[in-house]
Amino acid sequence: MTATIHQLGPARSPSLEPMLQLVAADLNHVNAVILERMQSHVTLIPELAGHLIAGGGKRMRPMLTLACARLLDYGGSRHHKLAAAVEFIHTATLLHDDVVDSSGLRRGRRTANIIWGNPASVLVGDFLFSRSFELMVEDGSLKVLRILSRASAVIAEGEVDQLTAQRRIETGEDHYLHIIGAKTAALFAAACRIASVVAERDEEVELALDCYGRNLGIAFQLVDDAIDYASDAATMGKGVGDDFRDGKLTLPVILAFARGGEADRRFWREAMEGGSSGDEQLAHATSLLRSTGALDDTLARARTYGQRAIDALGPFPGGRAKAALAEAVEFAIARAY
Amino acid sequence: MTATIHQLGPARSPSLEPMLQLVAADLNHVNAVILERMQSHVTLIPELAGHLIAGGGKRMRPMLTLACARLLDYGGSRHHKLAAAVEFIHTATLLHDDVVDSSGLRRGRRTANIIWGNPASVLVGDFLFSRSFELMVEDGSLKVLRILSRASAVIAEGEVDQLTAQRRIETGEDHYLHIIGAKTAALFAAACRIASVVAERDEEVELALDCYGRNLGIAFQLVDDAIDYASDAATMGKGVGDDFRDGKLTLPVILAFARGGEADRRFWREAMEGGSSGDEQLAHATSLLRSTGALDDTLARARTYGQRAIDALGPFPGGRAKAALAEAVEFAIARAY
Repeated sequence: MTATIHQLGPARSPSLEPMLQLVAADLNHVNAVILERMQSHVTLIPELAGHLIAGGGKRMRPMLTLACARLLDYGGSRHHKLAAAVEFIHTATLLHDDVVDSSGLRRGRRTANIIWGNPASVLVGDFLFSRSFELMVEDGSLKVLRILSRASAVIAEGEVDQLTAQRRIETGEDHYLHIIGAKTAALFAAACRIASVVAERDEEVELALDCYGRNLGIAFQLVDDAIDYASDAATMGKGVGDDFRDGKLTLPVILAFARGGEADRRFWREAMEGGSSGDEQLAHATSLLRSTGALDDTLARARTYGQRAIDALGPFPGGRAKAALAEAVEFAIARAY
Repeated sequence: MTATIHQLGPARSPSLEPMLQLVAADLNHVNAVILERMQSHVTLIPELAGHLIAGGGKRMRPMLTLACARLLDYGGSRHHKLAAAVEFIHTATLLHDDVVDSSGLRRGRRTANIIWGNPASVLVGDFLFSRSFELMVEDGSLKVLRILSRASAVIAEGEVDQLTAQRRIETGEDHYLHIIGAKTAALFAAACRIASVVAERDEEVELALDCYGRNLGIAFQLVDDAIDYASDAATMGKGVGDDFRDGKLTLPVILAFARGGEADRRFWREAMEGGSSGDEQLAHATSLLRSTGALDDTLARARTYGQRAIDALGPFPGGRAKAALAEAVEFAIARAY
């Protein structure tokens, strides 16, 4: 059974449904923890946090914790609080990201910073971040605390790194992969890894799950990068070309710049470093991304990372959990098609 | 000896010098930890963090951890990392506060958000916050983690509460004291309390130090509130009247509003809720704060909290540490004179 699942291909239409079904009962517990622990006598906090948390997120990261715990046949309930902690960290970074990027749309809805302002978004993010540590402390595993505090620092480091690289067209592919390894993949990796801690499995299992999550996270981000140039607001849930307009360097642009002639490079430099990033420029950018094969090859990279994620599952016994985790990778990739 | 120290009075000129001398050697260790742990391969992080951390802060909170540890005759070195963690939390909140308040000056220097922009300040704040938890995890005390993660959540809650109360002139004294108890005093309390944990003393000692720190923190904030209307940028290190111009409700205004007639109340309402807060309005505000006794009584409140802080030290044996902690309270109050 696992052999067919392990094949990536555009013919099937993979989804998160198997993972969702696998963890549905657990996810209800996690959602209850999330709802309970985002409460505060300061009503703006649950109001703002609820907008984002209830607002159609896929709960991808907490689901990974739950699914990995199932993969390890964990029978307890510690992972409910910890999966909620992971989602709080994620939500806090989203709130801060939207302030940093001055975003207006996320998941097809107006962002919290647009509705309640930047100050509230910054502070409620801080609250959720603190709350996530409170949840971990209640669980009481120093190992989990180590993994998630480390991941949080790496995420912030990656975000600052990206801020520095933004509008700097010379950023290379390696540097960029390092950035998304930090800002996106570190939390995917940690979300998976902590399942091994609660299931009290050895270091090898921890590392395998870390590897699965990390590679899935990178694949996920690369597909996001490609979609930003290939989709429209309706399917993406955010404005198409946002990255382009923000001068946010992503792998498609890095590849197109590297492969372009003088005129192309001048175009990319002006678009990333300065203001000339209107609709006409976006159309030209997209055509360059296609003609140089930059979009296709970004997705090829994503598939490679996806395959590494699936291979990291190799040592685990086949079954529903393994199949669901493998299909989650396929889903991440298939979003681009 | 302790009896004379325990008297608050304007005749002496109290300072932080005794506390500084008491903990000088420890503080060097803490500064080394701070310098080492704010490093990152992302150079903007130490650059921005260093601006604030090296920028003339008093290290009040870490000094409190160190001095309280001395009060308990603690002979180890665990408190160095933890005091650094406390300072990182404080620095992270300062970075975010300056973004939230759109501040331009702090401690007489341009704020990080003015130099490097809001996005960098938000993200480096997140980094320092994560780093502080990494330091705590390295120490390995779940009790310390509980105290500081709780304090962090309460701080963020207090900040959001203040944001909501801002420009809302009806905010009462009790509500305001609750806000500063959270946003300022919670970290003072936690900084003191964790000294008892590393010294492995019982709950009673923990609570006494918590009480000392909490009341000192409230006194400290109330004096800051008064100074904002009574000082100038040179002595304060930030612009005088900043609170007024930001429509930030503080106890002096709350008291003056409560005591004022119809015209006064209209003035305060317009000043706090709307744009009319120029130099002329500030001068009028200051005269109202004086004529209603609001400034004096804010300081009287501060002295009461200061006295409670000193009384919380009662059970501890006299000596250098106790005297230094008591004088720190006197210093906090005396800044207003």
